[in-house]
Amino acid sequence: MTQALRHDAMRARNLALVLAAVGARESVTRAALAEMTGLTKTTVSKLVGDLIEGGLVVETGAVRDGERGRPGVEIRISGQHVAALGLEVNVDYLAVCVVDLARTVRLRRTQAVDNRAAPPVDVIARLGDLASAVVDEAVENGLRVVGGVLAVPGPVDMTSGVVHNAPNLGWRDVPLASLLRFPFPVRVENEANLAALGELWFGSGLPDFLHVSGEIGIGAGLVVRGRLFRGAHGFAGELGHVVVSPDGPPCRCGGRGCLEQYAGQDALLTAARAAASVRPAPVPPAAAPGNPPGGMPPREDAGKAGETDKSRETRTSEETGTSGEPREPSSSPEMLLPAQQGVAWVLSRLQEGDADARAACERAAWALGVALSSAVNLVDPDAIVLGGIYAPLFPWIGHMVADTLKDRLGQMRGAVPPVVVSRLGAEAAALGAAGQVIEQVMADPAALLHT
Amino acid sequence: MTQALRHDAMRARNLALVLAAVGARESVTRAALAEMTGLTKTTVSKLVGDLIEGGLVVETGAVRDGERGRPGVEIRISGQHVAALGLEVNVDYLAVCVVDLARTVRLRRTQAVDNRAAPPVDVIARLGDLASAVVDEAVENGLRVVGGVLAVPGPVDMTSGVVHNAPNLGWRDVPLASLLRFPFPVRVENEANLAALGELWFGSGLPDFLHVSGEIGIGAGLVVRGRLFRGAHGFAGELGHVVVSPDGPPCRCGGRGCLEQYAGQDALLTAARAAASVRPAPVPPAAAPGNPPGGMPPREDAGKAGETDKSRETRTSEETGTSGEPREPSSSPEMLLPAQQGVAWVLSRLQEGDADARAACERAAWALGVALSSAVNLVDPDAIVLGGIYAPLFPWIGHMVADTLKDRLGQMRGAVPPVVVSRLGAEAAALGAAGQVIEQVMADPAALLHT
Ligand SMILES: [Zn+2]
Ligand SMILES: [Zn+2]
Repeated sequence: MTQALRHDAMRARNLALVLAAVGARESVTRAALAEMTGLTKTTVSKLVGDLIEGGLVVETGAVRDGERGRPGVEIRISGQHVAALGLEVNVDYLAVCVVDLARTVRLRRTQAVDNRAAPPVDVIARLGDLASAVVDEAVENGLRVVGGVLAVPGPVDMTSGVVHNAPNLGWRDVPLASLLRFPFPVRVENEANLAALGELWFGSGLPDFLHVSGEIGIGAGLVVRGRLFRGAHGFAGELGHVVVSPDGPPCRCGGRGCLEQYAGQDALLTAARAAASVRPAPVPPAAAPGNPPGGMPPREDAGKAGETDKSRETRTSEETGTSGEPREPSSSPEMLLPAQQGVAWVLSRLQEGDADARAACERAAWALGVALSSAVNLVDPDAIVLGGIYAPLFPWIGHMVADTLKDRLGQMRGAVPPVVVSRLGAEAAALGAAGQVIEQVMADPAALLHT
Repeated sequence: MTQALRHDAMRARNLALVLAAVGARESVTRAALAEMTGLTKTTVSKLVGDLIEGGLVVETGAVRDGERGRPGVEIRISGQHVAALGLEVNVDYLAVCVVDLARTVRLRRTQAVDNRAAPPVDVIARLGDLASAVVDEAVENGLRVVGGVLAVPGPVDMTSGVVHNAPNLGWRDVPLASLLRFPFPVRVENEANLAALGELWFGSGLPDFLHVSGEIGIGAGLVVRGRLFRGAHGFAGELGHVVVSPDGPPCRCGGRGCLEQYAGQDALLTAARAAASVRPAPVPPAAAPGNPPGGMPPREDAGKAGETDKSRETRTSEETGTSGEPREPSSSPEMLLPAQQGVAWVLSRLQEGDADARAACERAAWALGVALSSAVNLVDPDAIVLGGIYAPLFPWIGHMVADTLKDRLGQMRGAVPPVVVSRLGAEAAALGAAGQVIEQVMADPAALLHT
């Protein structure tokens, strides 16, 4: 290693060290940073100067007594310059959001659209329009979007950006990375992984959990001590294809009796409709996650998730409006997309006390409990967070999932992981995507600064 | 942080840095160490002096041209002083081994004994005698045993050393750590975790794999990029209780249809005997792992595991004899322990072409394939290594496990992880236990040196 290279590497490492120390507190003085990092005050002052110049940290102007020695100016992460773009393509919606370096959600848009009907290039073009609009608005607000991550519902080769197989979208070997046109790098990652990271950074605040993304497919993301577990090839967390019953219904993965065949959105809907007539039921607006449906959930304690209230604060700290694009295809009940109609329809049936809907949820919850008992035995999570469609369904399924887990695990394990609801619902993946860009900036700020 | 504390912390970190650099190569000069670590030659010389004094590294005496500048003395990890003790209690045997800092296995002993019959305190006393004998012999050879790890077949609270539940031993809340009496620290850990680490350090040399320990219970250890995945509470890898069929036979864990009920040693034996008469069959000596049984395995390629040949070299580099204690209880066929008799008996039946034994293996292999397909979906390992009783059974079950995995995973995943055999067999856990002590010394050599 040459002297110059060694110097650059050390500067990059020290910049990250100082930025992490700033991020670890609400605000901090240069003297405290020297204490925290073990660097000299002179070095810290130089590095803080570089970070201020790059717009990553900001002096608050507030002056107070330093813990040691003379008063110092407080420094904090700047939310005014650097920002990240989160994007998601899912089966029945597109989502984008902009998050600033202080982790405040600045902008978000979702668009209901059936992406199974369109070729990938059209889906990406539509997503690009949605994203360009929020990026333009971010720029008007003085933000500089430095990178993005795109969430897709299927395993992704993270080095090439190729989506090998997103069966619910009908995508196979789609070179997604090469279809994206942005003036900043955009990586592609699995939706379930990013939803778990969204839950970590913008949701419950738990450091160890398995997050379950219920959509048409079912993915999971395992977070261990604040880090996502990806497996050897980045394909971990395919909970939807964990075996519930080895001779059960055939699955699109080639297996039989996978969880998706019992608890995926389509399976749930089919089961709920099995005995019901096909007459269109009145469809209320889809219940927002965090606003449990008005009907009587089967248990008083079913909505237990008080510890996830922080996610509401994150949302209300948003500086710009949350009004999305007009949801053209869903402007009237008749025009609802099949999937949306599905969950809303199931919810309305549950609220009416419909026995078939209840039975379908019981079956799905039992299957979730069986698959999750295998997951707990294998990966030992500290908690289970139910997200996606399971968030609005939580009052009906949560306690049944927990009961099945207790039946199957309680005897050998002292404590069975609690089953809680995600308050982020369908937004989790896009938020996790943006959060991942923020993480990357925090880990290597030198890459953003002119060296 | 005071100046003195800061200096000690930096010295400890630099000692570990230099020791790791020495360990990364066969041998290395001080000049090369300065290059590799970024430390000055003066600092490196001081640290190497401390490591030599502590017996952790040694000058080989060989002198050759340095890569840069003048010739230097080569330094390597010393195998002559510091050593580690590995211990294992399993259902039907005890095992101990001594491994030196250069990772050479110096001593090993196993003792066949039915530990289900004895209270924990007696089992530990017997293990203590076995261990004291090898520690004494190690001391006679000039070694200093600095620590030990004990493998037990069940989840362990690693902070307290309490074994909550080892159902196959009949142990519940046993304060194992407090029963151990050694003049050095001995920690307790799950057998399946340690067997995976044994495979990592002394077996295949693969960096990413799921190691399956088939015993009366079935555990698994997941290694990702050379590190063991433990889960939130250290209870990950309970493959034996992954659901194969949700309404299958009841399991001691409280669940139903767990893998252990289809592929555990007792289940396999019961199935193999189901239709066979109870007359005692002639029992050959248990086939050593690595020496496939003489009979005709069903496929020519079934024994594929050429890449694990390194483990043989590790074994042959042993300096002291491998002769164990006399296996009193198993000195004659009639006296074989039930479990040993079981696998040996199944092997002999397979070699004779017995249809019932074949069918029992088919059922076990199918169940292993089903449970492993769930595991691959959840944790995405790069390879699957079958150890414990599955090592001698591999020629009969390996291809069937692989076929079931391919059927269930092949359509969605580009590559299904290969299924290979462990060459360590029942020794894996004790070797992993000793290896873990070595890892700890490498990570924090300062703790061993007089500061
Ligand atoms: Zn499937
Ligand atoms: Zn079980």
